[in-house]
Amino acid sequence: MEQTGKKKTTIVLFSGDYDKAMAAFIIANGAAAYDHEVTIFSTFWGLNTLRKEGPVQTNKGLLEKMFGWMMPRGANKLGLSKMQMFGMGPKMIKHVIKKHNAMTLPQLIELSQEMGVKLVACTMTMDLLGLQQEELLDGIELGGVAAYLGDASEGNVNLFI
Amino acid sequence: MEQTGKKKTTIVLFSGDYDKAMAAFIIANGAAAYDHEVTIFSTFWGLNTLRKEGPVQTNKGLLEKMFGWMMPRGANKLGLSKMQMFGMGPKMIKHVIKKHNAMTLPQLIELSQEMGVKLVACTMTMDLLGLQQEELLDGIELGGVAAYLGDASEGNVNLFI
Amino acid sequence: MEQTGKKKTTIVLFSGDYDKAMAAFIIANGAAAYDHEVTIFSTFWGLNTLRKEGPVQTNKGLLEKMFGWMMPRGANKLGLSKMQMFGMGPKMIKHVIKKHNAMTLPQLIELSQEMGVKLVACTMTMDLLGLQQEELLDGIELGGVAAYLGDASEGNVNLFI
Repeated sequence: MEQTGKKKTTIVLFSGDYDKAMAAFIIANGAAAYDHEVTIFSTFWGLNTLRKEGPVQTNKGLLEKMFGWMMPRGANKLGLSKMQMFGMGPKMIKHVIKKHNAMTLPQLIELSQEMGVKLVACTMTMDLLGLQQEELLDGIELGGVAAYLGDASEGNVNLFI
Repeated sequence: MEQTGKKKTTIVLFSGDYDKAMAAFIIANGAAAYDHEVTIFSTFWGLNTLRKEGPVQTNKGLLEKMFGWMMPRGANKLGLSKMQMFGMGPKMIKHVIKKHNAMTLPQLIELSQEMGVKLVACTMTMDLLGLQQEELLDGIELGGVAAYLGDASEGNVNLFI
Repeated sequence: MEQTGKKKTTIVLFSGDYDKAMAAFIIANGAAAYDHEVTIFSTFWGLNTLRKEGPVQTNKGLLEKMFGWMMPRGANKLGLSKMQMFGMGPKMIKHVIKKHNAMTLPQLIELSQEMGVKLVACTMTMDLLGLQQEELLDGIELGGVAAYLGDASEGNVNLFI
């Protein structure tokens, strides 16, 4: 990998908040535009960003089903890290995004995939929370902490969000 | 920039919590003391850290006014990320800061400016939240993700707070 | 230090959430397994991760005692950053950790010490919150922002969690 001579940027996306995920994908897409090799490694609540919107038929135990029900299905369902205000905050943010012709989180994610940002879902957290690959968007790789460290140790912009 | 041979440190200050902002400015001021070139790029709720205390006369739409009212005006008004306890937590923290002759957040920010830390406000978030430059402290630069990546890709201590 | 030729990884552990601390120690232990020199610098609520479980006899003022009472004593008492659900969330997480034979946070911390991860407690926050060294686990070093920056500026995987 190092032979490509490209700068590397990695983001651990731990958070499942709409606003934090927006920041993650804006930085990732910016870095991809500057020709960095970019990886977003989604773990814990950050995995919810990558879930498909609709319910997906899976074969799970009760606890895994409970996590599945309680956690938001996909980027559009996420709350805010601040000013959640019983759901009014996310509505306001989406309204101003539209008003300013900025990109919504689902659009930012789609763009990231088009720009070649590598989206990796943390296998360990998927096990713990009982998420299965078919519940995630298409084009998501699976990986563990070793894969993350392999990328991060070759780059210098390494963020935990 | 790279010619100066100085180490670079960048912090994305996303959080609008008093305690997290304290950590950001303590690290930034420490790095400046060690002669790093330091940039704090404030985005989303981190912009509230840089707001002037008093109300500022601006010409805004209703939604922007609402965000302006609801978000804290300046570093001294921020809450804590933990133990907020209906406002008692921030009072306790400010009390122990005083008791230990440590610096308050407004003092840390002032010191950072004296030490030459570059404070940048994220233009995209200012647009989204309807903040205008005259609402921010003096000496704040405006910039976007490209400016951030330019600095970050030349440094190795790059934090997201 | 630099002479060892080892890669350096540093984590500022600011958060006192069980899930975030798990992520921090999993990354740290992974990096140690790849022979990085790893430092976790615990500050603010991250210090609670390193507290001993039982009450420790100390000589403190009232405010320091209050902080001591209100903050969780040790890794096993921490809450979650999401889905806390009045304490049900942490129980569910610990249940799935057990079910999947994954490591609990106290086990991850113990492993980190065995693997030679350097655990540093931030002296400034210990002063502010009135924590004393005998309240922390054995083998914790004390240090300030200068020590952190010394390590971080020689590494490239530097995270703030």
